[in-house]
Amino acid sequence: MLSSLRRVAVIGTGLIGGSLAASLRAARPSLEVVGWSPGADAARAGELGLLSHAAPSLAQAVSRAELVVLAAPVDALPALMREVFEFAPREVVVTDCGSTKSGVVAAAQALGPVARRFVAGHPIAGGEQHGPQAARAGLFQGALAVLCPLPETDALALELVRELWTAVGAQVVDLPAGEHDAVFAEVSHWPHAVAFALCGAIASGPQAEPALRFAGAGLRDTTRIGASSSKLWADILLQNRERVLDSAARFQLELAGLLNELRATDREALTRRLEAASRWRQRLVRRPDAS
Amino acid sequence: MLSSLRRVAVIGTGLIGGSLAASLRAARPSLEVVGWSPGADAARAGELGLLSHAAPSLAQAVSRAELVVLAAPVDALPALMREVFEFAPREVVVTDCGSTKSGVVAAAQALGPVARRFVAGHPIAGGEQHGPQAARAGLFQGALAVLCPLPETDALALELVRELWTAVGAQVVDLPAGEHDAVFAEVSHWPHAVAFALCGAIASGPQAEPALRFAGAGLRDTTRIGASSSKLWADILLQNRERVLDSAARFQLELAGLLNELRATDREALTRRLEAASRWRQRLVRRPDAS
Repeated sequence: MLSSLRRVAVIGTGLIGGSLAASLRAARPSLEVVGWSPGADAARAGELGLLSHAAPSLAQAVSRAELVVLAAPVDALPALMREVFEFAPREVVVTDCGSTKSGVVAAAQALGPVARRFVAGHPIAGGEQHGPQAARAGLFQGALAVLCPLPETDALALELVRELWTAVGAQVVDLPAGEHDAVFAEVSHWPHAVAFALCGAIASGPQAEPALRFAGAGLRDTTRIGASSSKLWADILLQNRERVLDSAARFQLELAGLLNELRATDREALTRRLEAASRWRQRLVRRPDAS
Repeated sequence: MLSSLRRVAVIGTGLIGGSLAASLRAARPSLEVVGWSPGADAARAGELGLLSHAAPSLAQAVSRAELVVLAAPVDALPALMREVFEFAPREVVVTDCGSTKSGVVAAAQALGPVARRFVAGHPIAGGEQHGPQAARAGLFQGALAVLCPLPETDALALELVRELWTAVGAQVVDLPAGEHDAVFAEVSHWPHAVAFALCGAIASGPQAEPALRFAGAGLRDTTRIGASSSKLWADILLQNRERVLDSAARFQLELAGLLNELRATDREALTRRLEAASRWRQRLVRRPDAS
């Protein structure tokens, strides 16, 4: 039970890890929330008051932790997980916050029986900003947190991670890792690639400078996530490559249809196509409590 | 001079026309702002208090107007302009709010000498909502309004339209119609096509329903303009077809590069590409006064 915990370690203290640490401390003031990161982020997160304190090493961060949250880029998770299970107490529960889940689940299973105490997770929150300076308590209020338990996942470990996210205001949903990766390829990973490509095409075209002057709210919103970290997103796209390529293929088919109708000035077919898209989008409403 | 005007007519009283009417009335309470639209929009705009009153016909709306603002879909503008110059007083000044400018400028020039009193315009404001119920005074506060004067444009007509937009809080910028259409293909028209295509691909794919549940703020922002009016946007894309196809070709090249790197798992090249896109996007900041 979360209420009986004394120490939680957060590994990676950027936007997600820093916000989780701050949110946890606000929700459970008596809980010790220790942070560590490979660079200077943990020290900065400590200065910003997001953590109880920053640890000088991963081993020291997790050595007395009952729950460890990995909030690092997805390609760093397998190695971090191995180290955490090596240095943390025997009964530690480990979870992560990565945007792709099949890879980290496979990495946990490769570690043998400890995989029972790993609960793959993905809070649906964040933004194009990153680093501890962008973190804030409240980031997860009203957000979804997806958990991807395996058949062998320990029931108490799953319950603890569920309580973690509930404590910071998130709504927890279970979803198998493969389903998670298919739906998030479609609603997040591929749309990020599209936003990056929109920005890249403008940046390399003849309107790169005038565009900065004349862009309205439409372009700002459409490309907002194109300002995200290139390294983080290259990792995510590569991790979920097959499913992202599936989403890409459907998008390119849709785009080719639209362009054919535009080339042929087929107003009726083009209007019908835009109408079907618009009707779907009108069903996508802001969740009442989500930030 | 705007201050000496007694009557302005707004033809088309949806989001843009309705907001302009309401903004003008707020800025110049003594000005009579008459509205007309082909459907029920003008009556509704009248009920909502956006207009001084709704006119029963275009001829009656413009018969005593010194300034007429066309705020109708771009493909309706040539016919409306012809009627306005027929029924309005001899010295009337006419402007429009369309998102494409080359077509309407050519339509004005085809009318002969009256083209001197037509000033092509495009306020950079709006949104995915439409109709008079979405209109509001204040929509243009801090927005850009692009005007596309021709060499033969009457200087007083241009000055009057400039005052119109300044009076409702917009910042006026002059740009030749061809340049306008090239830059707006890139910053608005093609991004709308991309947002529609993202929605259309998801809507027709296997994740159409789960996507509605799991979408975060990223997808909501990236696709917001995909909820726009299909008819309005089919018109705009078709009106600015050649330039939109140019923007499309650059986008598809960028996308093909990204997908090649993803297929080849070329992390370094992919990261570099995303980085260039992200750097451009980070320069695209919200204008301090813009809504």
